[in-house]
Amino acid sequence: MIYLDHASATPVSKKVLDSMLPFFSDEFFNPSAPYISAKKVQGLYEEAKSKIAHAIGAKSPDLVITSGATEATNLAFTAVSKKVLVLETEHQSVLETAKNYDFETIKVDHTGLIDLDDLRKKLDENVELVSVSLANNEIGTIQPIAEISEIIRAERQNRLKNGIKTPLYLHSDASQALNLIDINVARLGVDLLTINSAKIYGPKGVGALYVAHGVKLKPIVYGGGQENGLRSGTENVPAVIGFATAIEEAKKHLNGNKKLYTEFSNLFQKEIKDAEIEPIFLGNKKHRLMNFCSVSFPGIDAERLIYKLEDKEIYLSTGAACAASKGKKSHVLKAIGLSDEEIAGSLRISFGALNSKEDIKIAVKEIKQAIKEEIERQK
Amino acid sequence: MIYLDHASATPVSKKVLDSMLPFFSDEFFNPSAPYISAKKVQGLYEEAKSKIAHAIGAKSPDLVITSGATEATNLAFTAVSKKVLVLETEHQSVLETAKNYDFETIKVDHTGLIDLDDLRKKLDENVELVSVSLANNEIGTIQPIAEISEIIRAERQNRLKNGIKTPLYLHSDASQALNLIDINVARLGVDLLTINSAKIYGPKGVGALYVAHGVKLKPIVYGGGQENGLRSGTENVPAVIGFATAIEEAKKHLNGNKKLYTEFSNLFQKEIKDAEIEPIFLGNKKHRLMNFCSVSFPGIDAERLIYKLEDKEIYLSTGAACAASKGKKSHVLKAIGLSDEEIAGSLRISFGALNSKEDIKIAVKEIKQAIKEEIERQK
Repeated sequence: MIYLDHASATPVSKKVLDSMLPFFSDEFFNPSAPYISAKKVQGLYEEAKSKIAHAIGAKSPDLVITSGATEATNLAFTAVSKKVLVLETEHQSVLETAKNYDFETIKVDHTGLIDLDDLRKKLDENVELVSVSLANNEIGTIQPIAEISEIIRAERQNRLKNGIKTPLYLHSDASQALNLIDINVARLGVDLLTINSAKIYGPKGVGALYVAHGVKLKPIVYGGGQENGLRSGTENVPAVIGFATAIEEAKKHLNGNKKLYTEFSNLFQKEIKDAEIEPIFLGNKKHRLMNFCSVSFPGIDAERLIYKLEDKEIYLSTGAACAASKGKKSHVLKAIGLSDEEIAGSLRISFGALNSKEDIKIAVKEIKQAIKEEIERQK
Repeated sequence: MIYLDHASATPVSKKVLDSMLPFFSDEFFNPSAPYISAKKVQGLYEEAKSKIAHAIGAKSPDLVITSGATEATNLAFTAVSKKVLVLETEHQSVLETAKNYDFETIKVDHTGLIDLDDLRKKLDENVELVSVSLANNEIGTIQPIAEISEIIRAERQNRLKNGIKTPLYLHSDASQALNLIDINVARLGVDLLTINSAKIYGPKGVGALYVAHGVKLKPIVYGGGQENGLRSGTENVPAVIGFATAIEEAKKHLNGNKKLYTEFSNLFQKEIKDAEIEPIFLGNKKHRLMNFCSVSFPGIDAERLIYKLEDKEIYLSTGAACAASKGKKSHVLKAIGLSDEEIAGSLRISFGALNSKEDIKIAVKEIKQAIKEEIERQK
């Protein structure tokens, strides 16, 4: 198997699973129970939360543990009630949540980078939240969050000067980025940050929201009052322990991964160049998660390509799994200005821990072969 | 260790964990991805959902998988927007959610059983939802859900006759009951039912809401549109697989468990009777989860007792873990008419898979000894 869809899901690493195992059947206690074994579990849970927080330059009380990135993003939006701005290339979790508010989208350029002028233009005094993902989940484009934060800071100053009391927050969804970007909430200047375990070799079903001091959220799940009353429900201890291990490992191997995936990416781009249809490389050359290689072969039906490659046990996708499964045309590829034909011919390739250089070579060879066959068929 | 707090948390059984393990690192694919390995995972996920549904007499499309019972209950309440009635002894997940609505509480008698006359009285034509747990989480009292359902059906008929269009639904939280009650949604006559994995030897962080045909919910988490658009977020495959195994096992061992825990319960009650303080057995003698033994020793500080017993590696609690951890007085024990002194002296003992008859005997002996020492100390 050559798995080239790490952006969609990653396997739980051995180290992560080993760290989780004792918490299923031995240290299974409810962290809120009164006796010492339960208090020990509570202590380990808090320690894991601290590790997760530390990995993004935050402290444990700033984190709300959730059941994943989607819930974290939904929770982030409860900070406000009126107008929000979201990047037009955001993940569905942001876009669908935004629809519950008065919302506008911010444009991107043809590489997927935010149009800062469009942000400035739309950032009127009614806007309460701006949501821009740290890295796009289809083409890997990395956004200049710190720069966006500066624009927001200036607008806040402006409001202060003019006696306008409307708050303004910056949220960023960093789900795709934890493996390849050294994240620090202060340096990014975000008020709210969504992070996720399932894309960094941690377990599914757990994520977290970083919440800066002074940002008031409304719970979306009420009950026993866990997570400082912001997210009720018995703590999912094994998942949080696993998340902590995964994020520490991600941090540790950040530079090594960046280097490795840059090599993979370069190799892929070099080898694929002489395919029968000249590939268009999508996204931003410079500001890109190095494990992403999104590429379009105009005139090819990428879905057919995927099924052909699947026979060779090569797994990749056309875009975000949740959108792709509904047969929707990618809003991201549309936003960066691709034609329908270019969108239909697009593949998202995302490297990860399961790949070797040899894999990349085989995959390119098979992709080229599949394209050749498709062209033959069309004749 | 003698663990007598199965109502608070249960260890993941070996069978459950074994069923989950392949889905962490091998069958880790995103169920929404387009290639065959992912589709296989999606198939197994759907199969697991069917098993869970089947165990409560429902079908897979009637279930919404959530991150646990608390979220399921919160989701259930989105069926309505105005007036709700909840039993005064409900879990915090019901009570705190109800506070977001115009709500009233229904009284219970001194055994924790619902006062049906009070329900009839309060069931005016504005009520849209009635929420009554199948079994109480502190004293194990089992409610006559089918009878409640009849009352609700009659009120619906009444509304129909009078041209009143306000809908009326019955929700029940069955989190504590799956191990000991053979649940069938049609027989119960519920429109919405909360179930949970973590209390039946399944993994934490997963639950489900049964939703009868015609009941329209509003999502509380928006995004990729999983779970028929009602609960977005990448499916937590290993957890759902584990939940399915756990619920099938629970069903299989239902009668055996009932018999075993009745023996434990009888043994406990017989042996504890001649403690230095005469115990008051809480809850309903007949309509009770047989693994619950809640008991009060008036004049004793139950919290001190718990710490004393912890030294002997006997683990039990005063009540619901999430409430107990906040030092709140139990609203359940208050509702059944216990005095402050009786509440302060109350223990919740809940048997389970980790117990043997010998455990019960040792535990009783140690509880009696601890009570004796407490009385000595007070002199």
